[in-house]
Amino acid sequence: MSEQALKIAVIGGGSSYTPELIEGFIQNYSELPITELYLVDIPEGQKKLEIIENLVRRMLKKKEIPISVHVTLNRREAIENADFVLTQIRVGLLEARAADERIPLQYQCIGQETTGAGGFSKALRTIPVILDICKEMEELAPDAFLINFTNPAGIITEAVAKHSRIKSIGLCNLPIGIKKKIANYAKTDIDNLAVEWVGINHLNWTTQIKLHGKDVLDQFLNNPAGEDSFSVKNIPDFKWDEDFLSSLGGLPCGYLRYYYMADKMLADELEAEREDGTRAEVVKKIEDELFAVYENTELNEKPALLENRGGAYYSLAAVNLISSIYNDKKDIQTVNTQNNGMLKFLSDDASIEINCVIDSQGAHPIQIQSDVKPHMIGLLQIVKAFESLTVEAAVKGDYQTALQALNLHPLVTSVTVAKAMLNDFLKEHERFLPQFNK
Amino acid sequence: MSEQALKIAVIGGGSSYTPELIEGFIQNYSELPITELYLVDIPEGQKKLEIIENLVRRMLKKKEIPISVHVTLNRREAIENADFVLTQIRVGLLEARAADERIPLQYQCIGQETTGAGGFSKALRTIPVILDICKEMEELAPDAFLINFTNPAGIITEAVAKHSRIKSIGLCNLPIGIKKKIANYAKTDIDNLAVEWVGINHLNWTTQIKLHGKDVLDQFLNNPAGEDSFSVKNIPDFKWDEDFLSSLGGLPCGYLRYYYMADKMLADELEAEREDGTRAEVVKKIEDELFAVYENTELNEKPALLENRGGAYYSLAAVNLISSIYNDKKDIQTVNTQNNGMLKFLSDDASIEINCVIDSQGAHPIQIQSDVKPHMIGLLQIVKAFESLTVEAAVKGDYQTALQALNLHPLVTSVTVAKAMLNDFLKEHERFLPQFNK
Amino acid sequence: MSEQALKIAVIGGGSSYTPELIEGFIQNYSELPITELYLVDIPEGQKKLEIIENLVRRMLKKKEIPISVHVTLNRREAIENADFVLTQIRVGLLEARAADERIPLQYQCIGQETTGAGGFSKALRTIPVILDICKEMEELAPDAFLINFTNPAGIITEAVAKHSRIKSIGLCNLPIGIKKKIANYAKTDIDNLAVEWVGINHLNWTTQIKLHGKDVLDQFLNNPAGEDSFSVKNIPDFKWDEDFLSSLGGLPCGYLRYYYMADKMLADELEAEREDGTRAEVVKKIEDELFAVYENTELNEKPALLENRGGAYYSLAAVNLISSIYNDKKDIQTVNTQNNGMLKFLSDDASIEINCVIDSQGAHPIQIQSDVKPHMIGLLQIVKAFESLTVEAAVKGDYQTALQALNLHPLVTSVTVAKAMLNDFLKEHERFLPQFNK
Amino acid sequence: MSEQALKIAVIGGGSSYTPELIEGFIQNYSELPITELYLVDIPEGQKKLEIIENLVRRMLKKKEIPISVHVTLNRREAIENADFVLTQIRVGLLEARAADERIPLQYQCIGQETTGAGGFSKALRTIPVILDICKEMEELAPDAFLINFTNPAGIITEAVAKHSRIKSIGLCNLPIGIKKKIANYAKTDIDNLAVEWVGINHLNWTTQIKLHGKDVLDQFLNNPAGEDSFSVKNIPDFKWDEDFLSSLGGLPCGYLRYYYMADKMLADELEAEREDGTRAEVVKKIEDELFAVYENTELNEKPALLENRGGAYYSLAAVNLISSIYNDKKDIQTVNTQNNGMLKFLSDDASIEINCVIDSQGAHPIQIQSDVKPHMIGLLQIVKAFESLTVEAAVKGDYQTALQALNLHPLVTSVTVAKAMLNDFLKEHERFLPQFNK
Repeated sequence: MSEQALKIAVIGGGSSYTPELIEGFIQNYSELPITELYLVDIPEGQKKLEIIENLVRRMLKKKEIPISVHVTLNRREAIENADFVLTQIRVGLLEARAADERIPLQYQCIGQETTGAGGFSKALRTIPVILDICKEMEELAPDAFLINFTNPAGIITEAVAKHSRIKSIGLCNLPIGIKKKIANYAKTDIDNLAVEWVGINHLNWTTQIKLHGKDVLDQFLNNPAGEDSFSVKNIPDFKWDEDFLSSLGGLPCGYLRYYYMADKMLADELEAEREDGTRAEVVKKIEDELFAVYENTELNEKPALLENRGGAYYSLAAVNLISSIYNDKKDIQTVNTQNNGMLKFLSDDASIEINCVIDSQGAHPIQIQSDVKPHMIGLLQIVKAFESLTVEAAVKGDYQTALQALNLHPLVTSVTVAKAMLNDFLKEHERFLPQFNK
Repeated sequence: MSEQALKIAVIGGGSSYTPELIEGFIQNYSELPITELYLVDIPEGQKKLEIIENLVRRMLKKKEIPISVHVTLNRREAIENADFVLTQIRVGLLEARAADERIPLQYQCIGQETTGAGGFSKALRTIPVILDICKEMEELAPDAFLINFTNPAGIITEAVAKHSRIKSIGLCNLPIGIKKKIANYAKTDIDNLAVEWVGINHLNWTTQIKLHGKDVLDQFLNNPAGEDSFSVKNIPDFKWDEDFLSSLGGLPCGYLRYYYMADKMLADELEAEREDGTRAEVVKKIEDELFAVYENTELNEKPALLENRGGAYYSLAAVNLISSIYNDKKDIQTVNTQNNGMLKFLSDDASIEINCVIDSQGAHPIQIQSDVKPHMIGLLQIVKAFESLTVEAAVKGDYQTALQALNLHPLVTSVTVAKAMLNDFLKEHERFLPQFNK
Repeated sequence: MSEQALKIAVIGGGSSYTPELIEGFIQNYSELPITELYLVDIPEGQKKLEIIENLVRRMLKKKEIPISVHVTLNRREAIENADFVLTQIRVGLLEARAADERIPLQYQCIGQETTGAGGFSKALRTIPVILDICKEMEELAPDAFLINFTNPAGIITEAVAKHSRIKSIGLCNLPIGIKKKIANYAKTDIDNLAVEWVGINHLNWTTQIKLHGKDVLDQFLNNPAGEDSFSVKNIPDFKWDEDFLSSLGGLPCGYLRYYYMADKMLADELEAEREDGTRAEVVKKIEDELFAVYENTELNEKPALLENRGGAYYSLAAVNLISSIYNDKKDIQTVNTQNNGMLKFLSDDASIEINCVIDSQGAHPIQIQSDVKPHMIGLLQIVKAFESLTVEAAVKGDYQTALQALNLHPLVTSVTVAKAMLNDFLKEHERFLPQFNK
Repeated sequence: MSEQALKIAVIGGGSSYTPELIEGFIQNYSELPITELYLVDIPEGQKKLEIIENLVRRMLKKKEIPISVHVTLNRREAIENADFVLTQIRVGLLEARAADERIPLQYQCIGQETTGAGGFSKALRTIPVILDICKEMEELAPDAFLINFTNPAGIITEAVAKHSRIKSIGLCNLPIGIKKKIANYAKTDIDNLAVEWVGINHLNWTTQIKLHGKDVLDQFLNNPAGEDSFSVKNIPDFKWDEDFLSSLGGLPCGYLRYYYMADKMLADELEAEREDGTRAEVVKKIEDELFAVYENTELNEKPALLENRGGAYYSLAAVNLISSIYNDKKDIQTVNTQNNGMLKFLSDDASIEINCVIDSQGAHPIQIQSDVKPHMIGLLQIVKAFESLTVEAAVKGDYQTALQALNLHPLVTSVTVAKAMLNDFLKEHERFLPQFNK
């Protein structure tokens, strides 16, 4: 860690989430005294980047925070000598996401940004860009940490670990969100809880909840639904079957509804798409509104509207992680990192989402205590095999590997469908998938 | 092995397959000099058992084979001091099978005797009976081998290995059938082939085919369908997608169509059921015809009609296995046995179907040489987790474990469907599932 | 953890180390408000126990600490409802230790309390007593933690984990001692260091030393000896060969001299024994002096003389551990616990010494980052196999297992010697080894 | 396998063992119709090679065997298009072996050709030459099998598997020798036995002996010594301790006396060396006598004197192996090959000695049935770590790795001794160890 300066580069700086992140930097400036902040984006995002830049400058000025802000389209300049590189990119923008969601629906498959066919397509587009960033880091900032928020975060983390020497951590706001909800539900402070997870990004179970050291998991497993169902925004919180929930051995994350209630979720998606378009299109509208608000030169703080966007606790998770690395805090956070023996039923080079000690060297997984159920193991193994094949397909640009990956996913109903979707994705996203057009 | 006598007990001796087995015993009498043959069945099967008994006696008499035949409803008498106990039972008869096939179809799920929900239901009924047989063997014939043909053979093998000290081997006619078809296709003798498999019963790939030591697998992977598609009877042999087949890394067994072409297979099953009833009902008719033929006192050999029944090479597989054990042959056969490290991605106590050296101690797996593809690993892991949970549910009679097992299966589309089917199975088969009604 | 009361039972309360422990309790009373402290010992130790009791009462009185002290020969009374049970026993007293040290020397083998044949003999005597304590805990204080300081601490920890349901942690002052020495040498505070270990109790290497996040291990590997050689008391600190030390990949703990310099260490032990008797006999004299000092009614604090005894930082390690459990601190300490996958080259049920997060549930190992060298793996594996066999021999009282255990130890030179030593141990310690005289 | 021709290259063709091998080829010519036999050696061995050539020609002529014999110093010519390459080389000749045996004795360590320090030194010299041969095979005969007899055969096998793509099998006459002795002792034919081994080359236990399927191992474990003690020539057959032998769980191979009776074996070696010189020097005399006999132009068969040389069954093992590959026999032989999961306690890339099915693809290990004892595991793990480090040191020529390897061996008593021996080996064999003098 450079002693004098603390440089952070945000790739995808023009994202609507950036004000959330900046708010976190402002609130935690005393322990995380950033000197240089680079916001970088692609030419297509220049207009948004400028809006963000101006808002950020107003936010910093209001609180008199002396962070030097730099805005650039030159990624190498942003990365050079950075201490942390944050990636929050969206290759192909929301238009590409809309296709990722719509194409599967056309084949009666779940169309979701990170889970199933949609996540597969997003990974194919995103992995090459992230690995390019890694290569630039290896050259220009070899000791920096890559903190990745880009989805599918678990697959991206695995791709980076397998194909780069850069230190990297994948971050999702789901674990901290669930922990907050558990604390709210139990009417306690988050620090009184010990929560343990088993699984991978967007596919995990909360297998241990201790309140002041006392096991209270069963209270949650006997509460199948409603407001306290711990869903993230934009995943319908259908009620769990009571017998099923109480026999799961862990509180399922909201994304598990795509696996356990595939029929209902698909019906819901199809209906929503008919009425309001895909989720990408809904988000597009929110984003347009947000940027209209951001442009208001009177605005000098994070607007309340941003809460609707779906990234609750994103800023908290990010600042916690960066600060614990910077300050060698040795506290415990839940992040995506390499398995390396922690979940014996997954291979060593798989990415998992797990409680880790965070210090200046990065994230160090802590041995889990929970009894992992065979049904968790089985589902994780097939989805992880899908993820591993997806990484391989994205890196090699190999059609046959891609076909095997997509066909393997439990939410893809047949080879016929897998092949049709794959062909549609390759055609639709052709300009973002040069590796398949060699 | 008793030196003087060689006693074989056939549990389910009234099966329509028995003449096939007897034909094998007759043809191989010189190397497998059986002294005592016990055919045992339940009271409901007494009529059939008598028909079989008379046919068997006529067959033996024609060839002047001095095997002493005993027919009994007393299973303990049959097992006592046996050298081999063969199980070919069908708990609940074809009526129960019909329900196993029809119930899933009502929920738009594959309805099949061994794969998916149907196999699950059959396992719940069958495992307790097989384990009772094992207990009797532990008492009355502790050194005997249990040779199990009863489906789902892989799950049964795993249940026996986990819950009994009896030496047991699970046998399926699929591997020898595929090998015969490959030999026919290659216009060669089976002895010129070296064939390797990866997987478990009814879910495996032929990953190596060597003809005179030369690798010819690719010839088969580039031949997606038609008459040479290596299907077993009663599985429709839909054509494989060419890209898909050539990227699989192994020739899929016919049952894999249920996974890879779930949509087509389901449509086909629904149509067939509408037209002819379930497969069980079709088989029922064939069996009725068979027993009418068997009753003919002129008949003194296996009738040609038996070929239609679907158990080709069953006799060959059985006699080969028993003779190699009896004669300490040390030859290579493909059977179901405990994994114990052979497929590193499955647990040690999983049952797998693998090439083994067969000697007087039983089956000894041979290290595989094939490159196992990640997509094979992922699918095998989730189905094996399902199988392991199914064994646990069948032994404990635990509703919640049963629900998790069935819900985990990739061909079961949601918790809602899983629970509905489970409830239907438990109700339909109530008298065969005492462990769930404690 | 009981909210109102905090009861600690010290088994072996008459130990000369007890004042050190009490000093720690006094200094940390604010965060560890013990209400009941039970000191328990055996009849042979009653005189010492009384001396300790009186000193402890004077120490508490001086500082006005309201801990209620109870002294008893009734172990069950001490254990009942305890929150923590601390074991610091010496089965057979120093007389037995002297035999453990002298017998191997008679066969030209290393004679040491914890390493090699001496540790083996001590384990045979100690394991049955510790497991008796565990049984009483299961009955009388099933939620209490067993904190074991008794040597050989690694073997004892493994025995408890394999044969009891009691939560237990094995504690040694070596790791904290090394960390303190490293800090002194680097002229820094211990909190600025991140230190990682690979290995088991009394057989480990410091494989990572980071000072303010910067790797400084090589500075230590290039400093083979002298005052800074990190030995514990009573292990001669012979200089390491420079080539050897720099190629080790980790700083060896002092006990590794018994393996790497067996020839010199043996010669040194033989000479020391000729001149001063065994280490046990030297310690006996120190203890006699200590108790003479303890008896002085003017003394109301830990006397300086105790430093010579060899248990530096013992109190610090103990209080740190108990307080972190009691206060759910989630800080990092190095303790002995079950491997369960952390060191892939050892079995899951092996005890290892590793950095752990300590919270109210106990110790949770943190994934190691260090590159573990093959030579470390090989040595750990054979010694761990010895330890595992020793546990089995101690529990079963099986002569043949004991012979295989002792013969396997790399410091035992032949079967002839192993058998002779085993026979001598069994004869010498007959009354402490009832399990071998069934 | 070439259909028309069958070419075998023997590297080290001038060895005194060659007539034994040729006798095997002659006796088995009908099933192994060799067309071209190349005997190749180094210039220093030219004289011997000529003597061997003439004897071989006389032997073939006598039996009218139409094998075409070629003698050459050009190794590439011999290897080109070979079907089998046999390596029976001795880098540095018997003079180097004498140093390998004498140097350790000077430090009171076992001095033996394959076990301990001597085997280490031999491996350093031999591995580079074998890997050169592999490189030539990759170029000139990429489908040929390398059949290696050169010691230390286990370490060489591991080096080839790790550093070459060539198919290779390591062969030792010990397993077949033990099997023969067991058969003699049981007064039965070898075919009535089923024998299973656990371990690596020259360090293994016979853990299962079945005679006609009946377990008779205990008869052997209760017979500690004497004529029936299954030693190979040149290892003293000291009597085993009865308690020790009966608790071993397997019949130890003769080389295990170096580990279990290190004291006696060392004393014996020191005395033998004083009286007759090292074993190498004894062998040198036998060889001189043998070549004198070989030169006799009247001799046209293997002379009886060769029996004294110590390679009993060498020819049998070699011809059995080559013929089973050539004829795709699928029979069972005990050879050295890659572990790949068969012994779970050793790494996948370790070489092990195990029962294999031999077919045209090579050797396929068979799952072991024996209960492997913890003491076997511990000893195998440390020696295998030594072997793995030895391979690395030999390939890299790295002094520090070599020092760690040698120091790790359980028969090397301290770092001081390890370093002194290493320095002596490097000096003595300098011209054969170019990799250490880069």
